[in-house]
Order: sequence, then C-alpha cells, then structure tokens
Amino acid sequence: MSSHSLLNETHNPSLQSWVTSANEKGTDFPIQNLPFAVFRQQGTEQNFRGGVAIGDQVLDLAAAAKSGVFSGIAQQALEACSNDQLNDFMGMGKDAWSGLRAALSQALSEGSNAESALSSCLVAQADVEYALPCRIGDYTDFYTSIHHATSVGKKFRPDNPLLPNYKWVPIGYHGRSSSIEISGSDFKRPKGQTKAPTAETPSFGPCKRLDYELEVGIFVGKGNELGEPIALDNADNHVFGFCIFNDWSARDIQGWEYQPLGPFLSKNFASTISPWIVTTEALAPYRKSWTRDENDPQPMPYLESEANRELGAFDIQLQVKLETEKMRSAGEDAVELSQSNFTDSYWTVAQMVAHHTVNGCNLQPGDMFGSGTQSGPNPEQAGSLLELSNAGAEPISLPNGESRTFLEDGDNVIMSGWCEKEGYARIGFGFVEAKVLPA
Amino acid sequence: MSSHSLLNETHNPSLQSWVTSANEKGTDFPIQNLPFAVFRQQGTEQNFRGGVAIGDQVLDLAAAAKSGVFSGIAQQALEACSNDQLNDFMGMGKDAWSGLRAALSQALSEGSNAESALSSCLVAQADVEYALPCRIGDYTDFYTSIHHATSVGKKFRPDNPLLPNYKWVPIGYHGRSSSIEISGSDFKRPKGQTKAPTAETPSFGPCKRLDYELEVGIFVGKGNELGEPIALDNADNHVFGFCIFNDWSARDIQGWEYQPLGPFLSKNFASTISPWIVTTEALAPYRKSWTRDENDPQPMPYLESEANRELGAFDIQLQVKLETEKMRSAGEDAVELSQSNFTDSYWTVAQMVAHHTVNGCNLQPGDMFGSGTQSGPNPEQAGSLLELSNAGAEPISLPNGESRTFLEDGDNVIMSGWCEKEGYARIGFGFVEAKVLPA
Repeated sequence: MSSHSLLNETHNPSLQSWVTSANEKGTDFPIQNLPFAVFRQQGTEQNFRGGVAIGDQVLDLAAAAKSGVFSGIAQQALEACSNDQLNDFMGMGKDAWSGLRAALSQALSEGSNAESALSSCLVAQADVEYALPCRIGDYTDFYTSIHHATSVGKKFRPDNPLLPNYKWVPIGYHGRSSSIEISGSDFKRPKGQTKAPTAETPSFGPCKRLDYELEVGIFVGKGNELGEPIALDNADNHVFGFCIFNDWSARDIQGWEYQPLGPFLSKNFASTISPWIVTTEALAPYRKSWTRDENDPQPMPYLESEANRELGAFDIQLQVKLETEKMRSAGEDAVELSQSNFTDSYWTVAQMVAHHTVNGCNLQPGDMFGSGTQSGPNPEQAGSLLELSNAGAEPISLPNGESRTFLEDGDNVIMSGWCEKEGYARIGFGFVEAKVLPA
Repeated sequence: MSSHSLLNETHNPSLQSWVTSANEKGTDFPIQNLPFAVFRQQGTEQNFRGGVAIGDQVLDLAAAAKSGVFSGIAQQALEACSNDQLNDFMGMGKDAWSGLRAALSQALSEGSNAESALSSCLVAQADVEYALPCRIGDYTDFYTSIHHATSVGKKFRPDNPLLPNYKWVPIGYHGRSSSIEISGSDFKRPKGQTKAPTAETPSFGPCKRLDYELEVGIFVGKGNELGEPIALDNADNHVFGFCIFNDWSARDIQGWEYQPLGPFLSKNFASTISPWIVTTEALAPYRKSWTRDENDPQPMPYLESEANRELGAFDIQLQVKLETEKMRSAGEDAVELSQSNFTDSYWTVAQMVAHHTVNGCNLQPGDMFGSGTQSGPNPEQAGSLLELSNAGAEPISLPNGESRTFLEDGDNVIMSGWCEKEGYARIGFGFVEAKVLPA
C-alpha cells in the first residue's frame, strides 16, 4: 500500500477552478483542498450553514443543495451540510464525504457547466463569520509529541520527565467541550488557585503563566457502537478531517491542581479552533511513513500494522505567531514564535483512534481529538511558551524590543498549518487566532 | 438562613396523592418527591418523553401538556418536557422548575379536580423503559470524599496518599459523556494495557480488576456564559437535581495509564446513571450544615459563605448491592456491600459549581457532575471494591459462600439512594444497576 492508492482525480495538481482566486500561488484553498466550515454573512442574522472554501470564496452548501447541479449521494450530503452543524454529514461516512468531494471538484473545475448555477452560491470569505463546524460531543486531548512530553515533564517532574508508560500508551485525557470556541473568540485571562513552590499555602488570583499550545485538531466522522473497538486499519473510515487547535493552558493553575486526576481548570476556560476542517481525503498526498525508533518499545499488536507504518503520519507544517498590543498599535506584523511538523508525533492518528476505542469506548460524529502540543526535536520547534521560555526562566526577545515569558493581556496568538510537496498542490488550513483579555 | 426558608407546601409531609401507591410507606416516590425522567412504554417504538414519578406510576408529561389542566409557566415547562431530552426544561431555570413542581403537587394531591384529566396520563413504572434524561454535553467527575481519596491514595501512592492540594482544591477532572448510559445497560468488560508491578513490560487483555464507584450524579440546570463565574451562593439557581451514579473503573488499566494526565480508558468504557432526577427543591428538607474541621485549611473566599456552612450538605443515604450470577440462578436476593452518606463529602455541591466556573468555564443545561466515590469514615462504608477488598488483598465473603476481590462476569451491581428524617416524607432515588458481560 502506498499513498498513491489513496489518490484520485480530486488530487490532480493540474486541476484549475473557474473561481480564479483558487488558482493563485500560495492560496490555502485551491480546488485540491475543499475544506468544510459553518458560516454566515457577517453582521447578519442569517442561519449558519455549511460551506466549502475555494480560493478567497466560500461555496454556500445550503445554496448549492438547492442549485439543481448535484444528485445522488452528493446531493444527500449537501442537504446534510445545509444546517448549522455538520454532525449529520460527518456521520454519513466515507462514501458520502468522498462522493461530495468528487462532485464539488468537478463542479468547481475550470470548464464545468455548473459555473453559472454555482457562481451565485459564492460568498467572499472577507464577508463571512464562522461558527463551530459541529457539535463537539466529547473532546479528548492526546499527548503525542515526545519532545513536548519530555521537556514539559522536566519542568513538572525534574527527576522523572518521561513516565514509564509514555512509549507504550498513547496518553490522552478528556477535555471540556463547552469552552471550545471558534477562531476570533477572545477570552478573559482565567483566575484560579496557584501555589508558588516556596509558599506555605496557595493563593487566588489571575493566572500569571498563561500559555498557548500548538495542536492539530482531529474530527471524528462516523462513530462506533459502545463495546465495539475500531481496528487500527479501519481508522480512516472514522476520521473526517483536521483543523488547527490552540489548547490555552494556565501553567500555574495546572501545576497546583493536576495531581492526581489531571489538568482541569488550567485548560477548560478556553480552547480555540480554526474554522476550516481539511478532510482526511484532501490530505492523502501528504501521508508519510511512520517509524518507531528500533531502540524504543515497538507498539502492541492493536497499535501496529503495515498500513500504519507506511501511511500513518501526516506531513502538516505548523506555525505559531504572536501579535502583541504594541505591535498592533504600531501597525507591525505578528512575529513567528516557532514552527513544527505533525510528522514528529510519536503516535499516529490511527493509533489514537484504535487506542481510544480498544476498551469499547464509543466515538460519535463531531467528537474532537487534540493531538497534544506539537513540539519538534529541536528546542526552537517548541509548541508552547513553557518550553520556549524554559518555564519562564529565559524570556524570549521579540523584534520590537518586547520580551515574553508567558502571555500578556492583549496578546493575539495566531496559528496556522499547511502542506506542500513537489508535484502536488499546496493546501492550507487557514488560521486560528484569539486574544487574551484582562482577567 | 435555615432549611425552613427553602420549604414550601410541596414539602408538606401530610400531603397525600390520589395516586394511592404514592401514599404507601416506603415508596421512593411520594408526592413530596416528583423526580423527572425520560421514558416510553416498554417494547414500543413510541417517542421518548419526559415523565414524573408518582408512587408506582409515571405521569406522562407530554400527555399532561395536552391535558388542559395546566397554564402559565407550568404549561410552558411541560411543553419543554414533552420531547426526548429535558435540556430545554433544565435551562429554563428555577422559576420554571419550581412552578411546575407546585402545579404538579397540587394536581396530583388528593381531592384535586385534575384527577379525571390526569389519570389517563399515568403509565405503570413496571411497563416503561427509560432513556438518558438529557443530552449530557460535558461530564465532570469530582473527588469529594476525603475518605475515598485517602484510602485509594494509599494504594496508588503508599508514601503520599493525600496530595497537598486536596484540602484546598475541590479536585475534579473531565470524563467521557458518550459512554454514560441509563440503568440496565449491561456492558462488556473492557480490554486494555496493564502492567503488573513486577513485570518488565505491560501486557494487553481483559481488565482483571474491574470495580464500581458509588457516586451521586449532579445535573446542571441553567448554565453560565463563558467568562462569567457562578458565585457560591448562586449555585442553587444552577443545580437542577441529583441521581445515583456508578462510575465503573478498571483499576489495573488506571494504574498503568493515569500519569500524568489522569484516568482515561480506565473509566470511559461505561458509566451508568439511575433514570430519575430528584430535584434540588425536593431535597430541601434534607439539607444540612457543612463544616470544615478546624484543624484543616478553611476554604478560600470563593468557596466560603454562611449559607454554604448552614445548608451546603445533602443528607442522601447511599447503598450498593451485588447480585452475582450464582445468586441470580439460585433466586437469591442481592446482598448489600456497603452504605455511605453524601454528608460525609469534603466539599459541597455549591463549592463544586463555584470552583468549576471560577476560571470562567461555562456550564450548560444537562451537564453532569459526578461527586466522586462516596466512602464514609469507617472502612465498611467504602464505595468501591478497591477499598473493601484492600486492593484485592482481602477478598470479601458473600453469604452464599462466594467471595470477591473485584467484579466477575455476570455480576450485577445495584446502587440506590434515599433521604429520611423525622417529620418529613421519605423520598428515594430508585436505583441504578448494570451487569458485567464477558470481554
């Protein structure tokens, strides 16, 4: 099995669209991408509904469903995308996802006779606002970057950074769904209990060590019944797509509260996702082989397969930028803090799915996984300020003369992701951003 | 403030109902209770809808909404209870909950002229099946029994049983909503990774240390906006009611996976709740003063108030029984394993609400909290087998000659709860039960 077996005409790099902005070099949304969001025209009371990005436009899927252009499974899928949550579409499964993608790819291609019917279904991305793409029933955060786990482990447990289970268990824990918000949702700095290492007793107040975490968000499509695990090689049938995810973290609250049952208030005050879900199918050209260092324990049988070795990894480049209040006032651009790549993950998405369900736990359409902070092997590839500032001991300098250990009020954190490879169309995720408001 | 200020005519112990089974001594569901569930006639394809227990009957709330008996806020509330999830009703807030309770209490009282219209809205409990009472968007499990935390802590961390944060922080963590099921939902023994203390490497297979946890489930009614904490003394306006909750736990999976981010697959294979939600208002006579040992740290200001001291605790008696396959075959009754009381909780429900939201985390109607395993101060009051069997070292003997360290296939665990006090009507929660099926 090679990544070629997953490719079809929708991935053809020479495809062009009659939506000419989709053909521009560097766009996140060429016709080979076709990611999904839920949107409406900004400043209106319209119903939110599904949309697909094409160039600098959104194809309104509720309008497309009424256009008369589509039929069969693509039309059924469009109808499921016409409301304000994509869960029903996500639950339809791979044939529907793939059928709609093929039909949209054709209809949006240069020379398609659907142009006249669909051009009135386009809305400029500049004029829309987004909502969460689906109801996220349950959200699970994994911890798949061994580089992050090791360097964070050093700060919380200097004597014991990487716990003995790490190389065996794709560590994950349950997060809070209600406070997951869409890009642009600014939030107040959380208050809470913290305890300085030297203090006798804890104190209460605004978080002093507020951090971001650069993650990939993974959306479950078709679910499984309680008691029926999803096998590793069947995971693709259950993973609808991916977004970019900022798992904001209050490090001082976390340090005091997290034992013995894990992070709680240090995480659930806000989590922010990018609006567009890039589908698993769109990412087919960017699948890569996954290897486990031969000196490390090899995966248990339920986490091991040839297909997972050959195609388990996703080559998604990730970036985090910071725009401070001062930069904004001065009209300066945000500055890059780091980049990392999802291929450095210690566990694959399929392993996350297989592990999560091996005990019979049921996943449902629209559930989300966080990948855990994606930090690369080199220190400058760290996906959090905790790592970049060595837990606050080494402030990072910004080009405008400011410095940061942790986030300050007014800071806007902007994350993005993209895939590029010789011989294939570059595709992007757009971005996720949100600003820290005073407590 | 005393508990009397929360009492009204619906709590009058001399009230009797024209549904005569509600007047029988020992019933869980006298007219002073009036708990809510979602039900339908067993073995039919009827829509599930809201119901209120009265004696051995269910008052069908969808039918009651059409009866013409009710008006105003009670009628609006009934309409919100007519579908298969009570979230809308729960989100209406205290005036609606209280208005409907008052109207139902009147209409079901002996001598009410609603008897003829409502008697056709009754269905025997023996003939119904239940569904989850609401969509549980997020589920949080607390850890409020210091007796449980101490004795479990001894088994996972012999040198460090009660962590330094325990007496300051109402410890909680996020759980899995999708696998919460209604009483009667049997489930397969989970499989997973475990590692024996003496083993070099982990192994995979069916859980060998399957346990129950005796908990109170707490349902959020009205929610709060993200960024807007709920003050301690406002918690009653947000707590709709209570059920009995079994938080099944795979101890061997838990021991291997839980560090550093908390329990995950050891919990999310199944959790089971009783069908009836006993409202906060019904529990008014059973509120008790809450004290903090003067040698312990006193609560931080956001967790401290006079009202919480005077009325924070709920006097709910809890019981767990076991029915083994052998007992069932022999037609023998289930045997009691332990009893405990929710007043022994180290933190109150109001403190859970205030703590959960102090960082701005938003609660939504239908969200559920688990209280954490309720173990009393004496060893025989433990709410789990882990404690009763001293982590498997001391098997408990059953009257029929069997013994248990942890649960075996075919074991049916039955939990119940009730409140009784001189001068007030006894009210009960019904029960929650589920059977362990082979892996």
